[in-house]
Amino acid sequence: MTTDTWVEGGSDGGFGVENLPYGIFSRPGELPRAGAAIGGHVLDLAAMSAAGLVEDRRYFASGSLNAFMVAGRAAWEANRTRLVELLTDEAYRDRVEPHLIPVTDVELLRPFEVADYVDFYSSEHHARNTGRIFRPRDEPLPSNWKRLPVAYHGRSGTVYPSGTPIIRPCGQRRTPGEPEPTFGPSLRLDFEAEVGFVAGVPSVAGRGVPTGAFRDHVFGVVLLNDWSARDLQAWESRPLGPFLGKSFATSISSWVVPLAALEPARVSPPVQDPAPLPYLRCDEPWGLDLHLEVLINGRVASRPPFASMYWTPPQQLAHATVNGAPLRTGDLFGSGTVSGPDPDQRGCMLELSWDGREPLKLDDGTERSFLEDGDTVTIRAQAPGASGSRISLGEVTGTVHPPH
Amino acid sequence: MTTDTWVEGGSDGGFGVENLPYGIFSRPGELPRAGAAIGGHVLDLAAMSAAGLVEDRRYFASGSLNAFMVAGRAAWEANRTRLVELLTDEAYRDRVEPHLIPVTDVELLRPFEVADYVDFYSSEHHARNTGRIFRPRDEPLPSNWKRLPVAYHGRSGTVYPSGTPIIRPCGQRRTPGEPEPTFGPSLRLDFEAEVGFVAGVPSVAGRGVPTGAFRDHVFGVVLLNDWSARDLQAWESRPLGPFLGKSFATSISSWVVPLAALEPARVSPPVQDPAPLPYLRCDEPWGLDLHLEVLINGRVASRPPFASMYWTPPQQLAHATVNGAPLRTGDLFGSGTVSGPDPDQRGCMLELSWDGREPLKLDDGTERSFLEDGDTVTIRAQAPGASGSRISLGEVTGTVHPPH
Repeated sequence: MTTDTWVEGGSDGGFGVENLPYGIFSRPGELPRAGAAIGGHVLDLAAMSAAGLVEDRRYFASGSLNAFMVAGRAAWEANRTRLVELLTDEAYRDRVEPHLIPVTDVELLRPFEVADYVDFYSSEHHARNTGRIFRPRDEPLPSNWKRLPVAYHGRSGTVYPSGTPIIRPCGQRRTPGEPEPTFGPSLRLDFEAEVGFVAGVPSVAGRGVPTGAFRDHVFGVVLLNDWSARDLQAWESRPLGPFLGKSFATSISSWVVPLAALEPARVSPPVQDPAPLPYLRCDEPWGLDLHLEVLINGRVASRPPFASMYWTPPQQLAHATVNGAPLRTGDLFGSGTVSGPDPDQRGCMLELSWDGREPLKLDDGTERSFLEDGDTVTIRAQAPGASGSRISLGEVTGTVHPPH
Repeated sequence: MTTDTWVEGGSDGGFGVENLPYGIFSRPGELPRAGAAIGGHVLDLAAMSAAGLVEDRRYFASGSLNAFMVAGRAAWEANRTRLVELLTDEAYRDRVEPHLIPVTDVELLRPFEVADYVDFYSSEHHARNTGRIFRPRDEPLPSNWKRLPVAYHGRSGTVYPSGTPIIRPCGQRRTPGEPEPTFGPSLRLDFEAEVGFVAGVPSVAGRGVPTGAFRDHVFGVVLLNDWSARDLQAWESRPLGPFLGKSFATSISSWVVPLAALEPARVSPPVQDPAPLPYLRCDEPWGLDLHLEVLINGRVASRPPFASMYWTPPQQLAHATVNGAPLRTGDLFGSGTVSGPDPDQRGCMLELSWDGREPLKLDDGTERSFLEDGDTVTIRAQAPGASGSRISLGEVTGTVHPPH
């Protein structure tokens, strides 16, 4: 049950007209510009705009989506409505078809310029598991964890598009029991399966973004891999949190799925007990029924369910701005590692191999405690879409390379 | 003993030709552009460039210094040499003088666009004091502290130019002994007196910047106030470090002092024991004899000596990039709070009032535990310059306002 489009194969792979994610693409010798995915094609929005088929305000003839992202919800909705009209009404076929390019003929680039990057820690299962692993004598959840969505700022300069090689980072570690730290390539390289939320419309300094204004500011959603070097992270993090253990690379998917496409995926989040403080309360359900899948070298390693996340994206945004910090176009916030209640739903190697003590068996017969050079990690996801469809969030992928 | 300039009052206030810091200024109805400070004047570099007096590569007719910062050390040195020639040789006076504007006639803006902002924690006195205050039962210095320069990423979107009003942030806190957190304006608002280092030339992903390449990448130095809400910070920081307690505002001075101007201020840093790992070793002395002064409402609150910092700026940069994270033009890294060994050399209220237990007495007869609405905090600094001069790092100032 999906909406019909005249595009051949236009409902394939979760990229039907219920989805219509935005990205930036290029072809050899041509400038990068904006496109929308439909089936196995990219609709060239810069060319559509030049042809007068979509509104031309120079949103799309640019190497990033930022100009369109800042335009705001009315512009996002108008463009979405127009694209659905153009792709479903046979009358437009002759004028639109020349602007469809097979996705295999283009290179997909980083879709937007990242302003600040914030990463949350909002899966209760992930937080409990890491607490048990790192602080076995303490209560697994820190006392603040159910009161506020814990987060830290990451490095926006190392947010890379899907496919960027991941060079194994070097740094200091101290193996427990050893008196001296040593330097070298990380021995405990990890992925973190996350969902990222991309801000379009800025907010005003000194005034927070209430949970009810979430849709007025957030443009869309990407998949995100917050690569982590657990040995570097463990040694450096006291008392100011992660630094080099995270700052070498964060990968994001090529397609930004509009928030509007995920309306049918909204579900009630887990019950929050204790009730959060008023600024974190949310009148509408903002759990999201996104089904993530992590693959290592093409073998399924985990299936994390985003619907199990404790803190919701509107709560995260309200928290991040309640101190008066304004939002900028291109601000990216990650959900934190998505881990479900079951062992095969855990969103990182640290949990999947229980800190290396119980190596993960892949169905190619190999085992992993942490990532090895040459490993390719791919995170993909799908969600319920309008008209009974399934929509794809595409994928974010990266291959581990040894240091130079 | 200073170098003579034909500019009247051209050696005033530590802004002689030994200094020549860069900034961005505007006058009503005119576009922002780059200038250099000389005495009580701003030399309009965009106009100088248009008149063919300094090399024109469109460095200066821009609203930020980034284009000049990326040009690299040879360009920085050539421009500096040329400015000294123009300002000391009377023969140029008639052609240059029309481009001098009294600094009182201009507005000074944020001098550069910030890419990523990283804040270190490199004063041993500050780290020991905060350790004693926050973790009185533990060893004051965490075990990693003398092995690596601890740091975290801050929010680049809230790095504001000197003079920007500081709105007291709201957020969650939990008073020790109370079971429930509460929400409201921070009750423990603080400053942190720091020095910031600004990257000009990017580095390559996957390769660190060795300590010996510091001068090839770092353009200059600003004064920095890392405003902090201690109550928010204490409650939120476990386990991922500070977030809302820092992200509401960081102020920087208007003038970026070129690294070359600080050559005469270089001194041997404190002896490092244990010896750092090889990637943190530095063949040249990079302590800096900067004399900071913190004023609250015009009264001296502290005089932190930068020469007492344990980790040096080249070590900080080498550490921040050793995991392969590349440097971008506009990357800013703060030294961390500068605190000397003496009580009147402490760089923040937390230390000066010992967590509010010993209020600081100002010589206007008032006392402070933390900052009050209406308080103006100013950090200024000077250093030895060439030819026996003193050079000024200008000032960074901000006034605390109540929340909206």
